[in-house]
Amino acid sequence: MEQIPGPAKERLLHLMRILEQAGEGKISSAGIETLTGWARDTIRKDISWIDGGECGGNKGYDPAVLVPAVRKALGLDRRRKFCVVGLGRLGSAYLNMQGLDFGEFELTAGFDSNVNRVEILKSTVPLYPAYKMAEVITRFGIEIALLCVPSEAARSVADRLVAAGIQGIINFSTAAITVPPEIAVRNVSIADELRGLAIRMKEG
Amino acid sequence: MEQIPGPAKERLLHLMRILEQAGEGKISSAGIETLTGWARDTIRKDISWIDGGECGGNKGYDPAVLVPAVRKALGLDRRRKFCVVGLGRLGSAYLNMQGLDFGEFELTAGFDSNVNRVEILKSTVPLYPAYKMAEVITRFGIEIALLCVPSEAARSVADRLVAAGIQGIINFSTAAITVPPEIAVRNVSIADELRGLAIRMKEG
Repeated sequence: MEQIPGPAKERLLHLMRILEQAGEGKISSAGIETLTGWARDTIRKDISWIDGGECGGNKGYDPAVLVPAVRKALGLDRRRKFCVVGLGRLGSAYLNMQGLDFGEFELTAGFDSNVNRVEILKSTVPLYPAYKMAEVITRFGIEIALLCVPSEAARSVADRLVAAGIQGIINFSTAAITVPPEIAVRNVSIADELRGLAIRMKEG
Repeated sequence: MEQIPGPAKERLLHLMRILEQAGEGKISSAGIETLTGWARDTIRKDISWIDGGECGGNKGYDPAVLVPAVRKALGLDRRRKFCVVGLGRLGSAYLNMQGLDFGEFELTAGFDSNVNRVEILKSTVPLYPAYKMAEVITRFGIEIALLCVPSEAARSVADRLVAAGIQGIINFSTAAITVPPEIAVRNVSIADELRGLAIRMKEG
């Protein structure tokens, strides 16, 4: 299960989400093809990474069996701690967002370089001034950071997060950040989301 | 150019972003392979959709030529109007975000069902009560909506956006929305971003 290729992992993750939202009852690879657009051979191959293709067959896959199996194979069956770094509009929006209180990820801390902001903001998670970042990340074993600082600060803050032992960063700034290869990064920007949407839109 | 397959479009979009951020000077398909992890044959094939492979060759691709060519081929060479629907924490964060004031997309309006909120919020773009959504979308020719409403409202608001003529929706809620096949949708959630990051992280 260590050997699942990256694209297969991405599809399995997407499949897991679809199955979580689907109702009860088995679903065939043809049914998954309709929902996702992936060829059913690809779907069968992907699922074979998980269970040797044993939980499917003529009667289709049982989400109650498949979802936990996919979660385990993808390493999502343990809880990870994450923090929000930069508590401006976006960062403070994430601090209290619905839907983050779920099993896999636990919001553990928020950080901002502005001590006043840290003291004034209301939050259900503890907030700290940025100079305590390394100490708090180590103490709580925080693995992931949502990087919500202004673009001009993104690189230096990312460096500090890596030095503090963070394992993965979701970068919401428009700046590209450079990290060692063993650190995972996802870049998320509205500009990219808009572009990604637009290339799939019909010309009006 | 109408026939570019979806995955090739996604890669070309990613390539465009990398080239935009790279410095001047030509880059080879081997150099792109190092930056992206895609096989150089895939890269050459993708680029051949754009220009017949003529702008590359032994000396590499010139970003100053390739970037505008990719932008045109992907249909990103015209300006599109978008709006923010739902002005809670996340939606109001997007209203004034840095980096949205760029050529391809123009933030044209914000909507919220709470008339008080519409009147109180400060914004550089005009804000309207939700009951004016169809009228404003039609009047300004808004094509894209950032759907930032609470999850329980997402489906019904998406239906109203489609009825108003919106062509693409970026769904930030955790609810799945159903739209006609000709409408483009991207679902964006922190839960998914965290999962997508975690499956690429080393086990700690």
